[in-house]
Amino acid sequence: MLPQNILSLGTTRSAIRELFEYGKKRKAEIGEDKVFDFSIGNPSIPAPDCLRTAINELLETEDAVTLHGYSSAQGDASVRNTIAEYLNSVHGTAFTGDNLYMTCGAAASLCISLRALLLPDEEVITFAPYFPEYKVFTEGQGGHLTVIPADTKSFQIDFDKLDAAINCNTKAVIINSPNNPSGVVYSEETIKKLAEVLERKSAELGREIYLIADEPYRELVYDDSITVPFVTKYYKNTIVCYSYSKSLSLPGERIGYILVPDEVTDSRLVYASVCGAGRSLGYVCAPTLFQHVAARCVGKTADISVYKKNRDLLYNGLTELGYDCVKPDGAFYLFVKALEDDANSFCEKAKNHELLLVSGDGFGCPGYVRISYCVATETIINSMPAFRALAEDYKK
Amino acid sequence: MLPQNILSLGTTRSAIRELFEYGKKRKAEIGEDKVFDFSIGNPSIPAPDCLRTAINELLETEDAVTLHGYSSAQGDASVRNTIAEYLNSVHGTAFTGDNLYMTCGAAASLCISLRALLLPDEEVITFAPYFPEYKVFTEGQGGHLTVIPADTKSFQIDFDKLDAAINCNTKAVIINSPNNPSGVVYSEETIKKLAEVLERKSAELGREIYLIADEPYRELVYDDSITVPFVTKYYKNTIVCYSYSKSLSLPGERIGYILVPDEVTDSRLVYASVCGAGRSLGYVCAPTLFQHVAARCVGKTADISVYKKNRDLLYNGLTELGYDCVKPDGAFYLFVKALEDDANSFCEKAKNHELLLVSGDGFGCPGYVRISYCVATETIINSMPAFRALAEDYKK
Repeated sequence: MLPQNILSLGTTRSAIRELFEYGKKRKAEIGEDKVFDFSIGNPSIPAPDCLRTAINELLETEDAVTLHGYSSAQGDASVRNTIAEYLNSVHGTAFTGDNLYMTCGAAASLCISLRALLLPDEEVITFAPYFPEYKVFTEGQGGHLTVIPADTKSFQIDFDKLDAAINCNTKAVIINSPNNPSGVVYSEETIKKLAEVLERKSAELGREIYLIADEPYRELVYDDSITVPFVTKYYKNTIVCYSYSKSLSLPGERIGYILVPDEVTDSRLVYASVCGAGRSLGYVCAPTLFQHVAARCVGKTADISVYKKNRDLLYNGLTELGYDCVKPDGAFYLFVKALEDDANSFCEKAKNHELLLVSGDGFGCPGYVRISYCVATETIINSMPAFRALAEDYKK
Repeated sequence: MLPQNILSLGTTRSAIRELFEYGKKRKAEIGEDKVFDFSIGNPSIPAPDCLRTAINELLETEDAVTLHGYSSAQGDASVRNTIAEYLNSVHGTAFTGDNLYMTCGAAASLCISLRALLLPDEEVITFAPYFPEYKVFTEGQGGHLTVIPADTKSFQIDFDKLDAAINCNTKAVIINSPNNPSGVVYSEETIKKLAEVLERKSAELGREIYLIADEPYRELVYDDSITVPFVTKYYKNTIVCYSYSKSLSLPGERIGYILVPDEVTDSRLVYASVCGAGRSLGYVCAPTLFQHVAARCVGKTADISVYKKNRDLLYNGLTELGYDCVKPDGAFYLFVKALEDDANSFCEKAKNHELLLVSGDGFGCPGYVRISYCVATETIINSMPAFRALAEDYKK
């Protein structure tokens, strides 16, 4: 007798993964360049040169026993100090290494944070469209995920619905900006309003409500006019979950951090609970070589200009063809209104034109599809006739 | 309001870590060479040359996007096939890559396996002396750990007590051989008897009882006459949890695997549950660079002859001084009978001679102390007068 909830997580393939596998098969049948695979959110650009330089230098200069040995559970102290100083230089904050806990990437950051905060059956709120693994991570740590329906006008936050959803069982709210799958960045106005609601509700209910800012796409923003508000400055009970997967193009290496600012109520207890949660989940320490690589590459990113080019080509191309898209300011996704109410059916019709799009249903936002533009630029250029033909199918 | 069980894991430092920190302070006070720090089980020898060669070759020849990109959740297929072939060549088994799930080290292997198997409040049995984190990992996955008291004659297994402990709530038994902290290797006779008991009890109770073989020390064995039985060949419902931390001296890099043989009842479902458990705990994939490093270093180990030398010096030295030690065949620990009933008090007296020994109480085996001999050989040689003086304290 196996735990059925866990087993079903292992037997049910995600819709995205399913489509990706279909794409691989289809490419083998008709040729790589004939299939326009927009299914997966994998970085398509190589890691910056600093990564290889850092690895080479570390291997040459550091003692192997120390370099590959255990770090403390919260991460190497010098690595954490370096990252704290970098954050301070960018955001004008006053963090130290003691505010940081190094993790095996964003998923680990989220699971550890949720395990650190949640009492059994407490609730976590997030906003559609949302990354579907939030439900897995929340339930895996004993909580329940409540999804606030999307504000499909602006893809910011529907505050009336949030207000109504918060109750005496609400422990945390997860936001993801720049957003997967909409590409939208929450404005400063949105963050201020969110802080106001959470402060008011915390006071009303007499309990802390934590804001978990899931920020793997923070650096992937394509216009100078856009800034991603640094959430700890707007709401004191903010915990930042970060990953280097996207910024340094190393999603397989599993390296990121949790930031617990001093402003958080009982900050040192929350940090200790993070340490306890890491132990409880089997995270002994984050991979040590890549802890040091992250510190040496601090402030660097892969060459994200390719994503900007892709974004512009795709957004402009689809808009010209009459598609209704949210303008994405960041991440590497475009969220497009399907040409019929049923996005799943729309995705099936898209397949007839060899376009692999992901239905918004899995992201809690029916009627939309996600297009991942972390692909070769030619894929976007060559896909335009297919998008045109797809649109024409609906004019018949 | 934070979860108190998780918080207390973060606030309570382990006795080992406490002693290690004391040692660092003491060394600063009186000099590195004056303190005989046997507290920590960190590999003290560098990784084998193949590690650096593998990293360099991988960085030079592999596409960076693929190399540092996500692997499938269960690990890169070619890596898993290579490891399966290696296991087959050594053990005469017939595994394929589909039997393997790559993990972030032994702690992850155990947590994922337990999460994959345990229904709420099911029991896991282990044998003293045991690695104390087993309790944390089991409780973190919703189970209860039952500890069978040590058989202090041979440090094999007290089967009468095991027999009495198994009940209709028992889901798994964890063994660790070569053992931390005793250094003892379970004999083939022990493994056969264990298999017999588990088979009989499974039949009696009408439920599967899984045997989890935690084997990070498998290769650390110092006499040709000693073989570590490969447990899957003796009991069908065996799951092996492995880590490269000790064999390749890279505990910080977090790389290991779970092996689910086809012989396990409903093997593919158990494997699927392992995949689901990994998702639920936030393990997206094992670090990709080190997955490939592990495959390229397959069958290699760090130069463990240093450990053998240390083992012999320490065991012979202490035995000559009249200490009562279990002869350790593997791992890098010696388990010694304290010279008084209270091992904690004995450890305090040892500190007067600058000897840092870990009380067996934390390992569920009072009256003994653990000496980690993964240290410089001189530390062992130079510590002998201190061990002599400590023994003389008890003759007064």
